[in-house]
Amino acid sequence: MDKIAIIGTGLIGTSLGLAMKKIKLKNVQIVGVDLERYRSNRAKKMGALDRVEGNLAEAVSDSNIVFICTPVMAIREVMEVIGPRLTEGVVVTDTGGTKRGVLNWAKEFLPEKVDFVGGHPLAGRETPGPDNADPEMFKDRPYCIVPRPGASTEGVQQIVDLASAIGARPYFIDADEHDSFVAAVSHLPFIMSTALIGATSKSPQWGDISHLASSGFRDVSRLASGDSIMHRDVCLTNKAGVVHWINELVAELERIKGMVQKESPSQELYDLFEKAFAERERWLAGVTTPWARADYERPQTPTFARTTAELMFGSRAAEGLFGDGKKDDKGRKK
Amino acid sequence: MDKIAIIGTGLIGTSLGLAMKKIKLKNVQIVGVDLERYRSNRAKKMGALDRVEGNLAEAVSDSNIVFICTPVMAIREVMEVIGPRLTEGVVVTDTGGTKRGVLNWAKEFLPEKVDFVGGHPLAGRETPGPDNADPEMFKDRPYCIVPRPGASTEGVQQIVDLASAIGARPYFIDADEHDSFVAAVSHLPFIMSTALIGATSKSPQWGDISHLASSGFRDVSRLASGDSIMHRDVCLTNKAGVVHWINELVAELERIKGMVQKESPSQELYDLFEKAFAERERWLAGVTTPWARADYERPQTPTFARTTAELMFGSRAAEGLFGDGKKDDKGRKK
Repeated sequence: MDKIAIIGTGLIGTSLGLAMKKIKLKNVQIVGVDLERYRSNRAKKMGALDRVEGNLAEAVSDSNIVFICTPVMAIREVMEVIGPRLTEGVVVTDTGGTKRGVLNWAKEFLPEKVDFVGGHPLAGRETPGPDNADPEMFKDRPYCIVPRPGASTEGVQQIVDLASAIGARPYFIDADEHDSFVAAVSHLPFIMSTALIGATSKSPQWGDISHLASSGFRDVSRLASGDSIMHRDVCLTNKAGVVHWINELVAELERIKGMVQKESPSQELYDLFEKAFAERERWLAGVTTPWARADYERPQTPTFARTTAELMFGSRAAEGLFGDGKKDDKGRKK
Repeated sequence: MDKIAIIGTGLIGTSLGLAMKKIKLKNVQIVGVDLERYRSNRAKKMGALDRVEGNLAEAVSDSNIVFICTPVMAIREVMEVIGPRLTEGVVVTDTGGTKRGVLNWAKEFLPEKVDFVGGHPLAGRETPGPDNADPEMFKDRPYCIVPRPGASTEGVQQIVDLASAIGARPYFIDADEHDSFVAAVSHLPFIMSTALIGATSKSPQWGDISHLASSGFRDVSRLASGDSIMHRDVCLTNKAGVVHWINELVAELERIKGMVQKESPSQELYDLFEKAFAERERWLAGVTTPWARADYERPQTPTFARTTAELMFGSRAAEGLFGDGKKDDKGRKK
């Protein structure tokens, strides 16, 4: 019996548990632990866990894979506590929204005999907690894979396989590039949502203004309803990226303001909106987004350990992973 | 047989036609006209119109109600052309996203013998054109009503009744307040979407960055896929409002950036995100949004002309409008 431990059974940890349960890994038990016992109990009730563990030591004891699914700042403490308790060959991964700090902490606190493979599924929703978990959350979403230098191919492959098996699209990326890129497409959007709510709701007329807020306002502000600790931690561990992209956005807003203020701004403004339209269409069409395309090929690590995956997940799951590709894509929109 | 004319059969005009068809107005024919004949033909094929008219004069001839559903800047021209052709007692309304300019044009070009009742349904989607029309588009959405001074109670009531009958929530508001308020909750969000796409896609690394864009980016950028002419017209006719709210947003973004840059920004940032979360929840819960509440009472004009509505819409629709309120809310989530 293999053991997968999930540390932190909030929205992502519980969704991961549900997703792994759904693919019916053979001879694997999934255990979970959370600072708040009610969260792990709830995750178990939802069917994401086979067992709730009482503390970190119990959770990682005899585990083959350890998922750290806490907010980013807590990952450091978790690593400090579990580091001395990990045995050789264990694969440790995380789901934090920034990766440079996490890689540094892994270097500092995790022994070299374990494989650390940083992970970041670009998935989620604004409503946190195990109650909002969803096994389909990772379907067709990019899943960043950031191995610690020296991690074994087999260890990396196990995380890639698991990510693929739950429907995500593994994407190898360097920690610094990851942090810079997600600052643009993940952290900046939620800061924008927060700023929209902040700017409008502080108006003395907000009581009246809010009557007219409709679906556009709802969507652009959606991310402001996300988890405050998660958002704070991501900002604190990615200051340079966040500041850079706020500056880029402000420059763009000032440029647009300049166009609106001109005497005859008609053509320039129209061109601006047309360009944004075209760029977004290009993105949506997948021209620049391989993970959104149905024919996207899952990246493979240099040596491909099908046997390891079979041992770990059973031949049925392995068949889905390494078969003709049809089963891997089953149920996804083409 | 009464006649309702829809000028401009794009997304909103066609949706209005479909919505009015759905409530089965008695003895009413709906006609449409568009600069592009294929759009009005398409609207008819979709079932939004009884007849396609060849030009504006034909469309408004013998009409009881005229809906102008073109982009804002085109409303002026439409009014210039139809003004001399309108007969006494006709009710003219529009669906433009700004109202001060429209009211001014109505004063300039529409004879006093017709009732002009400015309208703005806060509804839509980013995909324009009749093919994307939806009769349910106005369900539970605010529908701003901005009568021209001197408009008759009966004329205003007809537009309020129609808006209610298609499921929207009529909301009386002054033109200047309207423009200032929608700049905050409608124009600012779409400028933000445009700015997000602009700032990120101009990066030399966008090709790589875009691989990581996921649902958060998709939602915050959604409005950038809207109609460029509509967006341009709204900016051009609401310069002061748009500039004011861009400034407010930039100030808020700079404030957040300052917090991120601090040495120990933990508590302040957390509080910021918590406040945004709470404000958005308050908005979603309808504390400040009567139109989103199931028990919202439709505003009524001083003298309530049920008989007029019965004549116009038939007793079945009138029953829904003026009954015990249950029928009016049928099918809406409570």
